[in-house]
Amino acid sequence: MLQFLLALPMLTGATVRCSSVLAQQHSQVLRFRLCASSVRRPVHTSLVFYKLETNWGSKKVRERKLQSLRNIMDPTLEEILAPLRISVKEQGDLVRKLKETSAPELDIKKAIAELKARKKVLEDKELSLCPADAMFDRTRMEDLLKRRFFYDQSFAIYGGITGQFDFGPMGCATKTNFLQAWRRHFVLEEGMLEVDCTILTPEPVLKASGHVDRFADLMVKDVKNGECFRLDHLIKAHLEKLSTDKKTSAEQRAEYEDIIIKLDGMKKDEMNAVLRRFNMKSPITGNDLTDAIEFNLMFSTQIGPSGLIKGFLRPETAQGIFVNFKRLLEFNQGKLPFAAAQVGSAFRNEISPRSGLIRVREFQMAEIEHFTDPTDKAHPKFVSVKDLELVLYAACDQMDGKAAQPVRLGDAVAKKLIANETLAYFLGRIHLFLVKVGIDPARLRFRQHMANEMAHYACDCWDAEIKTSYGWVECVGCADRSCFDLQQHSKATNVRLVSEKLLPTPKTVDLIEVLPQKAVLGKEFKKEAKAIMDTLATLPESQIADIEKAFENGGTFSLTYASGKQVELRKDMIQVKRGKKTVHVEEVIPAVIEPSFGIGRILYSLFEHNFRIREGDEQRTFLSLPPIVAPLKCSVLPLSGNAEFAPLVSRLSDDLRLCDISHKVDDSGGSIGKRYARTDEIAIPFGITVDFDSLKEPHTVTLRERDSMQQVRCPIDGVAKLVRDLSLGKKTWTADVVPNYPKFEQQETTLAPQC
Amino acid sequence: MLQFLLALPMLTGATVRCSSVLAQQHSQVLRFRLCASSVRRPVHTSLVFYKLETNWGSKKVRERKLQSLRNIMDPTLEEILAPLRISVKEQGDLVRKLKETSAPELDIKKAIAELKARKKVLEDKELSLCPADAMFDRTRMEDLLKRRFFYDQSFAIYGGITGQFDFGPMGCATKTNFLQAWRRHFVLEEGMLEVDCTILTPEPVLKASGHVDRFADLMVKDVKNGECFRLDHLIKAHLEKLSTDKKTSAEQRAEYEDIIIKLDGMKKDEMNAVLRRFNMKSPITGNDLTDAIEFNLMFSTQIGPSGLIKGFLRPETAQGIFVNFKRLLEFNQGKLPFAAAQVGSAFRNEISPRSGLIRVREFQMAEIEHFTDPTDKAHPKFVSVKDLELVLYAACDQMDGKAAQPVRLGDAVAKKLIANETLAYFLGRIHLFLVKVGIDPARLRFRQHMANEMAHYACDCWDAEIKTSYGWVECVGCADRSCFDLQQHSKATNVRLVSEKLLPTPKTVDLIEVLPQKAVLGKEFKKEAKAIMDTLATLPESQIADIEKAFENGGTFSLTYASGKQVELRKDMIQVKRGKKTVHVEEVIPAVIEPSFGIGRILYSLFEHNFRIREGDEQRTFLSLPPIVAPLKCSVLPLSGNAEFAPLVSRLSDDLRLCDISHKVDDSGGSIGKRYARTDEIAIPFGITVDFDSLKEPHTVTLRERDSMQQVRCPIDGVAKLVRDLSLGKKTWTADVVPNYPKFEQQETTLAPQC
Repeated sequence: MLQFLLALPMLTGATVRCSSVLAQQHSQVLRFRLCASSVRRPVHTSLVFYKLETNWGSKKVRERKLQSLRNIMDPTLEEILAPLRISVKEQGDLVRKLKETSAPELDIKKAIAELKARKKVLEDKELSLCPADAMFDRTRMEDLLKRRFFYDQSFAIYGGITGQFDFGPMGCATKTNFLQAWRRHFVLEEGMLEVDCTILTPEPVLKASGHVDRFADLMVKDVKNGECFRLDHLIKAHLEKLSTDKKTSAEQRAEYEDIIIKLDGMKKDEMNAVLRRFNMKSPITGNDLTDAIEFNLMFSTQIGPSGLIKGFLRPETAQGIFVNFKRLLEFNQGKLPFAAAQVGSAFRNEISPRSGLIRVREFQMAEIEHFTDPTDKAHPKFVSVKDLELVLYAACDQMDGKAAQPVRLGDAVAKKLIANETLAYFLGRIHLFLVKVGIDPARLRFRQHMANEMAHYACDCWDAEIKTSYGWVECVGCADRSCFDLQQHSKATNVRLVSEKLLPTPKTVDLIEVLPQKAVLGKEFKKEAKAIMDTLATLPESQIADIEKAFENGGTFSLTYASGKQVELRKDMIQVKRGKKTVHVEEVIPAVIEPSFGIGRILYSLFEHNFRIREGDEQRTFLSLPPIVAPLKCSVLPLSGNAEFAPLVSRLSDDLRLCDISHKVDDSGGSIGKRYARTDEIAIPFGITVDFDSLKEPHTVTLRERDSMQQVRCPIDGVAKLVRDLSLGKKTWTADVVPNYPKFEQQETTLAPQC
Repeated sequence: MLQFLLALPMLTGATVRCSSVLAQQHSQVLRFRLCASSVRRPVHTSLVFYKLETNWGSKKVRERKLQSLRNIMDPTLEEILAPLRISVKEQGDLVRKLKETSAPELDIKKAIAELKARKKVLEDKELSLCPADAMFDRTRMEDLLKRRFFYDQSFAIYGGITGQFDFGPMGCATKTNFLQAWRRHFVLEEGMLEVDCTILTPEPVLKASGHVDRFADLMVKDVKNGECFRLDHLIKAHLEKLSTDKKTSAEQRAEYEDIIIKLDGMKKDEMNAVLRRFNMKSPITGNDLTDAIEFNLMFSTQIGPSGLIKGFLRPETAQGIFVNFKRLLEFNQGKLPFAAAQVGSAFRNEISPRSGLIRVREFQMAEIEHFTDPTDKAHPKFVSVKDLELVLYAACDQMDGKAAQPVRLGDAVAKKLIANETLAYFLGRIHLFLVKVGIDPARLRFRQHMANEMAHYACDCWDAEIKTSYGWVECVGCADRSCFDLQQHSKATNVRLVSEKLLPTPKTVDLIEVLPQKAVLGKEFKKEAKAIMDTLATLPESQIADIEKAFENGGTFSLTYASGKQVELRKDMIQVKRGKKTVHVEEVIPAVIEPSFGIGRILYSLFEHNFRIREGDEQRTFLSLPPIVAPLKCSVLPLSGNAEFAPLVSRLSDDLRLCDISHKVDDSGGSIGKRYARTDEIAIPFGITVDFDSLKEPHTVTLRERDSMQQVRCPIDGVAKLVRDLSLGKKTWTADVVPNYPKFEQQETTLAPQC
């Protein structure tokens, strides 16, 4: 089934990855393009978005919620979904049939558009029936994140800039911890080669990668005030508004819907035609609009003082790895496979940034490029993840209207659902990582790109999607990009980006080479000689054969070198030599498997999945981030301002520092309950309190756990080490603390009224 | 003395920090502007530079070198320097005298220019007499760094871009470790608030900071091909060339020297005049040159699709902290002092980048802004560094022709050599940090800015300068910037960036305030009313008194609001109220003390200071980076490809991973000596080798230390923990390993011939 899908001809043509409205959009759920993967930008988001938001807040029974989280549908709900599923499958089957019978392309295109529409209806219904977290209140979470400065809009005192966010102390520490965990899990654990390349990128590099030509959205401008609108958004909003008009006939309404469905696949001219046919104006001023403009999403600038070197801020970090391929291969002593990684900033000049950290103009990414022999994508460590069960939303299931389902990675590879072991290995590692840092596994799925969503060079592509109040958000892309990137840069630079592979047995090959007569060339062409010889060295065999023939016929050979110059070469200037050569190696262009993480999106999802409201005290909200990413690991709280507590507090602080445990001493005046609440807000998992009993020898303190609010009494000696072991996951609260230390009975709630 | 210096009127006028040729240049040694401090760009670098390079390589006796490193001059050398020192002092005294007698500004300017020239002669001579490291061979070090891909030019396969470098796996890991050490030493240890702000910065922010108007260099362009030259560099090179001409008279030569000396202080017109008077042409093509152009060093771009929001890539990270001041103060519960920190990329479009990592277009910085009460700059932890001895090169010593000298920080503050405790505390912390990560303390000094080098708002400024083969390189700036930055942003935004300070006793103050009559204003001015009221709320008391007077006289008051609009306000629209108020707090604009680190420069210096050639084997070079920054901590080497070694190797690898020790298994075919040499090159401090003896029970391995090449035999159990303790500095090789484990006798040298 999958093979059939992969065999679908690409309707999108040669799309650059991440190209957006110009490419086709086939995803049907509310999904945002990841900051750097091979998928496209969703088009129909804004309206759905608001609809969802309202649905989301409604309270459903906890049971149903849990079921939904496990991707198991309540039978009564399945009844509602059944006809929608059938409708998708019918259309999916039609698409397949049209393909099999090589129907006209237009018919296939229409059928796919209809398939997409049906898929969207199904998935929206699914989402509306299964709120991810009935308890979740985004406004309150955003209030907490803003108030305690996890992150906030940049340059707010200057009025702010949309699509840019500053991370405050707690957000920055969370991010640092997150990235450290990422480095440990991927770079150190797998021995990856981490690089740190520059952000400013000269134009030719991004020309080769395809970004200069195709990394664009269509937009129109208000002819009077220059305000910009994304054209697809504009058309959709306009037609939807028309549809709601009572005067609109059912026929017209159907036509508008048809246009909306086909928007994703429309070219510039087609969209322009729609714009003009309905005589659309600026929705804000009513002014006329320009024709559609292809707006490249990269920020451009000039490098150097002359203004002649055009550069861009990189739209992804991957290209920095590709252009360093040769050095990295050499660093790895010429051996495949190896992986390189990079963490850094990337930039996209979004026409309309929104949804907080999810679509921004400046963001951080972490990307891995795993270079491997294209004929051998097995992975030696695959065995370590083969029994791992991931929720997979396969392309064929999407076409059949089925739900995502848990699959063992070993089975997925055996059934060729996932294209190869290396890709599957990374999916497993991504799953383990996301769960480790605090993503709820019940709100995580891996969605496969359908054949018509994938860039033409990609073999298989899966996105880790995380369910948030914005719907399913694509947070990690994981694509088998074949040899595309290295090939492109090779072509653009004439530098061979290949690796050598030892042949099982040496083989003898015919050889034809050209030997320049340096002295003659030098004398004849002076300082041009070098450039000519450089070009000769790169001639393909076919051209050398042409030279041979020309000379045999007593002629000369006209060589083009250095982008356009021409010289006539005579027989005395170069010699063509034929022979045989025994070769022990062959050159291969490595294939690339690319996991690509959008840091901001994952962090946002982490905040959502770990936002809590205290049971029984609706006013208290907190973040239950796991210690591995929590900004600080421990708080130290003297019960009151009593001077006798100070030496113990500073001793605890020193002990924690020696254990490398980031912590915060809160000796502000508030009641202990209030201070606990404050430390809970910033996700500090453990708290040590010094009270009057602590003054007695042997000194003891209370140790409190954030989520359960349980407290135990323990000796001051060793409490720092205990917190360290808890923070590193070497010990757990329930298994190692609760049974071994006396419970501290004074309840926080009794303290609460003082707050 | 210092106070006198500080009292010198500023000749530079209101220079933005880091402004360059437009500001005056008073440093005389070869010194590069730090990536973000309050100093200026050196002007006369290039030629000196090459001269130094040749001097540097020459071999001097080791004794002399060591002396120089300790800043103690050989008496015979002091004899050579004595007349130069006297010459500087004479001129320094003249400058002082001219100032005291309020001599004409032009005379003072000339005298300072001459002082600078004399200081330069002295310092060049000092440097030439005391090569920093007679053994140092920059070419070989750069070969190592390039070959093992610590860093290299960006986009090399596309021809490369000057001033941009990519960090490869080893450089990237070194940098990551360096930054982690920085965070521990500064952020965690001092409880700083780390933030992570955006790189894209809208124009108004950098207009307020002064960068839009004054962050510029003067340049000229070749009229035909557009090639750009920094004008000061060009003039200097031209006149120096003329000077070497035999036909040039002594008189002319003196005149040229005079111009070169005065270049730093020249304005655009003056430099243009010199350019035209000598009819200078492009040194490359001989073409004519344009008039001088002020070239802003910031990279500009447009934010958003309309092209209307102009933005820049930030030239420093500091502004992100200032614009978040309010949020940070709030996070700190309104209390001063506190420090914020930021690590991130910054960008400067240098006209001619050079000297590898030292002057680049894209770089990383780490900046701290310590906000404190301007009337109380004491630091509670100063006591912890007061006995630390730093090599200080005070402004007065520079004027007196004296050398830098070691001074206890306690004494420096007591003598008011360093302006305050907080500044001195940071200087001490910077010193400790640099030495901890591997900077040779003998090649580290702190140079105070002379009064005429400092930005007009700064009170005191010291640069940590590190001696490299490029001369003394400014690597960390540490400035007391007074209240300048917050004031500027307050002015630009009308947002009060202040903190409240509890008064010792409450005081009663007269109060005059304006109470807008909202209903009347609203009715009269409609949607303008809000802007009018906003302006009213910010009126100073003097203006409110004016309103009061106008109304008393039966008139109206003409209010200017929203940049230029005017309205007439009547008595019924606003009420002026006088009264008394008891205030418990007063508002203060915090002063800022700013340590600012140029990461690339420090890393480069680290590589230089830790580059070694094996004694007795000149072919072997290595880096003796301390474990804290070494890219990997340990290597694991099976003696040969024998399959029996594999289980032990993988066990060691697992053990090291559990201890969080980054390591590299090298099971490539080379001899053990060759592999040691390779791991030494990438600075791996410890190596574990599995050999045939390891196979016997109880299993043992050899543990080798990189610098001494000593080896011991130790049980495989616990060796990972031992390496961890050594890496973290909890144990040392000589104190804890050598005495406790049997020496392993097989010498590496005996293995070397196999390499």
